[in-house]
Amino acid sequence: MAKEILYRKIASAVEQQIVAQTLKTGDKLPSIRTVQKIYDVSLNTVKQAFLELEGKSLIESRPKSGYYVSKSTGRRLLLPETSKPVLKDKGNHPEDLIIRVFDTMKDKTITQFSLGVPDQSLLPIPKLNKGVLKVIHSMDDSGTGYEPIQGNLNLRRNISRWSFTWGGKLGEQDIVTTSGAMNAIYNCFIAVTKPGDTIALESPVYFGILQIATELGLKIIELPTNPVTGIEIDALKKVLPRIKACCLISNFNNPLGSCMPDEHKKEVVKMLTNYTIPLIEDDLYGDIFFGKKRPAPCKLYDEAGIVMWCGSFSKSLAPGYRVGWVAPGRYKDKIIRQKLLHTISTPPLYQEVIADFMEYGRYDHHLRTLRQKLYTNCLQYQRAIEDYFPENTKITQPQGGFVLWLELEKKIDTAKLFDLAIAQKISFAPGRMFTQHDQFHNCLRLNFALKWDNELDFHLKRLGSMVKLFV
Amino acid sequence: MAKEILYRKIASAVEQQIVAQTLKTGDKLPSIRTVQKIYDVSLNTVKQAFLELEGKSLIESRPKSGYYVSKSTGRRLLLPETSKPVLKDKGNHPEDLIIRVFDTMKDKTITQFSLGVPDQSLLPIPKLNKGVLKVIHSMDDSGTGYEPIQGNLNLRRNISRWSFTWGGKLGEQDIVTTSGAMNAIYNCFIAVTKPGDTIALESPVYFGILQIATELGLKIIELPTNPVTGIEIDALKKVLPRIKACCLISNFNNPLGSCMPDEHKKEVVKMLTNYTIPLIEDDLYGDIFFGKKRPAPCKLYDEAGIVMWCGSFSKSLAPGYRVGWVAPGRYKDKIIRQKLLHTISTPPLYQEVIADFMEYGRYDHHLRTLRQKLYTNCLQYQRAIEDYFPENTKITQPQGGFVLWLELEKKIDTAKLFDLAIAQKISFAPGRMFTQHDQFHNCLRLNFALKWDNELDFHLKRLGSMVKLFV
Repeated sequence: MAKEILYRKIASAVEQQIVAQTLKTGDKLPSIRTVQKIYDVSLNTVKQAFLELEGKSLIESRPKSGYYVSKSTGRRLLLPETSKPVLKDKGNHPEDLIIRVFDTMKDKTITQFSLGVPDQSLLPIPKLNKGVLKVIHSMDDSGTGYEPIQGNLNLRRNISRWSFTWGGKLGEQDIVTTSGAMNAIYNCFIAVTKPGDTIALESPVYFGILQIATELGLKIIELPTNPVTGIEIDALKKVLPRIKACCLISNFNNPLGSCMPDEHKKEVVKMLTNYTIPLIEDDLYGDIFFGKKRPAPCKLYDEAGIVMWCGSFSKSLAPGYRVGWVAPGRYKDKIIRQKLLHTISTPPLYQEVIADFMEYGRYDHHLRTLRQKLYTNCLQYQRAIEDYFPENTKITQPQGGFVLWLELEKKIDTAKLFDLAIAQKISFAPGRMFTQHDQFHNCLRLNFALKWDNELDFHLKRLGSMVKLFV
Repeated sequence: MAKEILYRKIASAVEQQIVAQTLKTGDKLPSIRTVQKIYDVSLNTVKQAFLELEGKSLIESRPKSGYYVSKSTGRRLLLPETSKPVLKDKGNHPEDLIIRVFDTMKDKTITQFSLGVPDQSLLPIPKLNKGVLKVIHSMDDSGTGYEPIQGNLNLRRNISRWSFTWGGKLGEQDIVTTSGAMNAIYNCFIAVTKPGDTIALESPVYFGILQIATELGLKIIELPTNPVTGIEIDALKKVLPRIKACCLISNFNNPLGSCMPDEHKKEVVKMLTNYTIPLIEDDLYGDIFFGKKRPAPCKLYDEAGIVMWCGSFSKSLAPGYRVGWVAPGRYKDKIIRQKLLHTISTPPLYQEVIADFMEYGRYDHHLRTLRQKLYTNCLQYQRAIEDYFPENTKITQPQGGFVLWLELEKKIDTAKLFDLAIAQKISFAPGRMFTQHDQFHNCLRLNFALKWDNELDFHLKRLGSMVKLFV
């Protein structure tokens, strides 16, 4: 057979498998060498076949990992539309629902689609443990003493160096370490608001931020948010005269997965600077991008020091370490004072372990692997949801992070669906958790930072069946 | 020589050494066997000599440790009197002073009489490190994941068991773990007060509590406090109708060293229960007692669940671990919610390490040694201060904890003395830090949880000389 026909034969065979969904979105293709052996052809022939499939956007290559089936060729579920916060209809905050969802954490037999926490299998645990052993002996007091209130110097140095990945020019003196990102955000709110102040948030918005704001007696304006580009700039502009602070998850927003385009970020920083309104920027998913480069945070465009850039290692390295940070700009003194009052110091050991992990390139290496796995998971989930959920299901297409947001048929109440699912040992986050208003009842958030296997696929199938029955 | 005369001869020789201050308060006596060899007598003769000295209160035995010179036989400095808060003259909170003192933490060449932190030499670091290694391998996820919001189960179980040492009947479900005691106290205040509420505190009072209360917009009533028996009950009684919460360091108060008698504790709990006023009880020195048994906290007398009993391992085991707890009584749900909002979870590893340390008796063993060392230090400090400071210096006699409170001549401003001392690489905590009022200018607090040696003695001598020059 001519070489030309040979590679087409291979490409065609793979294409048929994709169309027949034998190979599904997110699946890894056999390696080039394996295919070579199967068809008894040259390496180049296989490469040419794969190139053709790539040209048709049926598969995609990932550096050092191989070829994967890309977006499904079949029907595509629609994206949810830009949110429309129901301004008049202000319900109570769904505290009970949140507690019910959190309570499922205790039961290890439940499949945790609900939490925004990476599965243990995605964490570099043996390497971190090595780091603990190393650091416990290298630290003068093995981490038993207090550290300066601003936080571990090595870690602050490494975080500021790491900010070069998005063009940041931060120094170690610009960073304050915290007990995770929530702790950073809490301290930011305390530092720049007082009870009765009004603040602007995205909608839907991560319920933890809602809870903090409610607790601090703040009035919350939820703003229309697009599942691709994030908060609507014009809507924000209108409320500027009324707000004392703004809090945004700029990159791979939780729960929408949106990522603000650079132009939007610039514009938002400019608008807020004009009014001297602090921006609390929750950038804890920024390093988990599926595209070619890390999106910059709003902090990049912050010349006046109004952006309080918050991050964490909870999503990328070890949630239980409780290590995050904030680069608080002009509010640094207030933040350090808050930290002193609440906890005096953060535990030094874990900070030193993470600093060590970053210093010698292990963090970078780990993130490359993590991103690959999460992207594959994201595609697998999308394929599974296309297969198992009703056709009118809308689904986000995040380019990073690890949550998917689903919009189901209007009449489906996901808080009720949650009870059914829990009975089947499946937990997810009902949409109502993500707003102060009486909406998103037909939405839900799924965590895709779990270990992908047949069982997980089966649980998504089961969840899809429940949705179908529920209609 | 008759046996009777022999033992009297030995006793007399030791007594002369004590009177001549060759043997000083806190010094360890030679062992019975050593004395036996020196005088070539029987063990019983030496024992009888020591018994006689003990009867005269010149020396005291400590189990498994030997005999020590007890309270000085020479002049005794006076105790400070019960504090009299200057109600009208309300100054600003001395924030700058506190920051200046905290800033000295960074300089390792400074002798830190200022901090309420035990010196590294008093901590069981190798044993704790062993615990870390053990636990990192025994925990399913090596401590990288979140734990239930209420805190590590093993640790809660061990803390509740440990409460048996003072007759407590707490169960694991009654305890919430926190990031140290300050974090516990902060959460307690948030849970039971709102801005504008009035609270009652001791005077002088630990400045961290003052800072928290000020930050939360609370109005503070400082109440007269006795350096031996703590807060004045009658003074508290008078303000009951006006206050929304009370916060006391019931055992070995910081900075006064006072320990409330059981009857006072009962009475306070009864009074507060009648008004349903929560008591935030900061009991973080309770385990560091110099007497025969651990004083009970107010929590022992709490039938209505109004006492929020706070503790920590920062003073006894490892400040940098940042592990504390609260038994919040009827306010448990609120406390758990606060913890969720601020930090989601405390780091699991250290909690597991401490639980393990407690479980197998190592904590008990460590505390016995620590108490001995601290008590010896306390006596050494008192002797040094008697020797080196002016005769009109007043000094507390704490029966536990690790701080001493000194009252100097009226005209001495310890904030100014602080600047002089820092130039000589000596740091202490000026009295003005411990009140919202314009008083205690002539007082200072010294941390005696340092390693006692000639250098430390010399630094106390130098500080005493500065005080004398300052007059």
